[in-house]
Amino acid sequence: MRGKKLEYQLLADIGNSRVHIYDGKEVVHLLPDEAIAKFGTKKVNYISVNTPLEARIKAETVWENVSNKVHITGEYKTMGVDRRTLCLSHDNGLFIDAGSAITVDVVERGAYKGGYILPGLSAMLGSYRQISDVLDVTLERSLDLTRLPLTTKEQISYGIIASIKALIEKHRENKPLYFTGGDGDFLAGFFQDAIYDEALVFHGMKRALRASEELGIRN
Amino acid sequence: MRGKKLEYQLLADIGNSRVHIYDGKEVVHLLPDEAIAKFGTKKVNYISVNTPLEARIKAETVWENVSNKVHITGEYKTMGVDRRTLCLSHDNGLFIDAGSAITVDVVERGAYKGGYILPGLSAMLGSYRQISDVLDVTLERSLDLTRLPLTTKEQISYGIIASIKALIEKHRENKPLYFTGGDGDFLAGFFQDAIYDEALVFHGMKRALRASEELGIRN
Repeated sequence: MRGKKLEYQLLADIGNSRVHIYDGKEVVHLLPDEAIAKFGTKKVNYISVNTPLEARIKAETVWENVSNKVHITGEYKTMGVDRRTLCLSHDNGLFIDAGSAITVDVVERGAYKGGYILPGLSAMLGSYRQISDVLDVTLERSLDLTRLPLTTKEQISYGIIASIKALIEKHRENKPLYFTGGDGDFLAGFFQDAIYDEALVFHGMKRALRASEELGIRN
Repeated sequence: MRGKKLEYQLLADIGNSRVHIYDGKEVVHLLPDEAIAKFGTKKVNYISVNTPLEARIKAETVWENVSNKVHITGEYKTMGVDRRTLCLSHDNGLFIDAGSAITVDVVERGAYKGGYILPGLSAMLGSYRQISDVLDVTLERSLDLTRLPLTTKEQISYGIIASIKALIEKHRENKPLYFTGGDGDFLAGFFQDAIYDEALVFHGMKRALRASEELGIRN
């Protein structure tokens, strides 16, 4: 019964600007005010990287912070709870969370093997703009990566996308590629057999909660 | 005699902030004021991407703008004269100019094959800083690229350097790698058999001027 109950429990992933809530079927992305107004009285297990919001959640909701139940073998000290959780979603793979930053993490047989951080697509475009007006372009979203480009807009888009892709391919070996985050779907389109899953972090949460319960039963 | 004379002629590459002057032996990097004060009365052939400075150069120096003598087969319409010139320095290679932006250009048998543009190292670091205070780090300059890192500072440094390297290696094939620019020497250190040459653009200028003279003689 326990496992079944968890399937339908509300889960939340609280980022710096949005609260992402999962009901077992779909993910909704809300501002903190909206999320608290709509779900504050409901039982919600959450992880959060938003420390300033913590006091409000304690005062205005019945939610439970389960961040301390999320651990993966090989994690490092300052590793964000959202990344730890994401890496628990599957036992093997590259996990790419493409949001304001892009994190790439490698997991083998359930253990964290390391990773790296890139600026998100929007931050990258912003940094070209800072350098020179000549480099102020929008991303060419239908870019052909099979040939070297010959316009500034395409050469910038190629620089961003092809460099992200080249480094992921280098670490891919035969692992599955799991994408999530706002630009995850777009980036996944440049890879063969990549999986985009908006709810990836929630699969990780479910597994962490189940493991924590089982540990509780054993002890 | 003509070729010999060119060897000792002053050449300048005028960027947005600095004037780089080459006397055939070494390169000096000056502010426009300094360059004009010190070399304004001397014969200098220059290329320039600094349009606003053009009027002052015309009024206060005897320098000659040779930008229109610099052409490479396959060049594209808005390709900067500094990149065209760089690509003329050798008949085959990848040319990486690592400054405020990083340009990577491919040349095969004297023809331009395309390229791409990345933000410079400092601009990249700035874009992480913009995303979150947690990502505000300095570059780990003695980074080990043979293993995936486990600290935020190293994961960011790895993201920057390893993604630049992966995409360059992808296009390298068997071509020589030529680095120039302020971060060129540092980046070259992450590649096998890379060549760092501060005067790369001036070799390209010399070749362009020689080709233009020969054309003049033939016509």
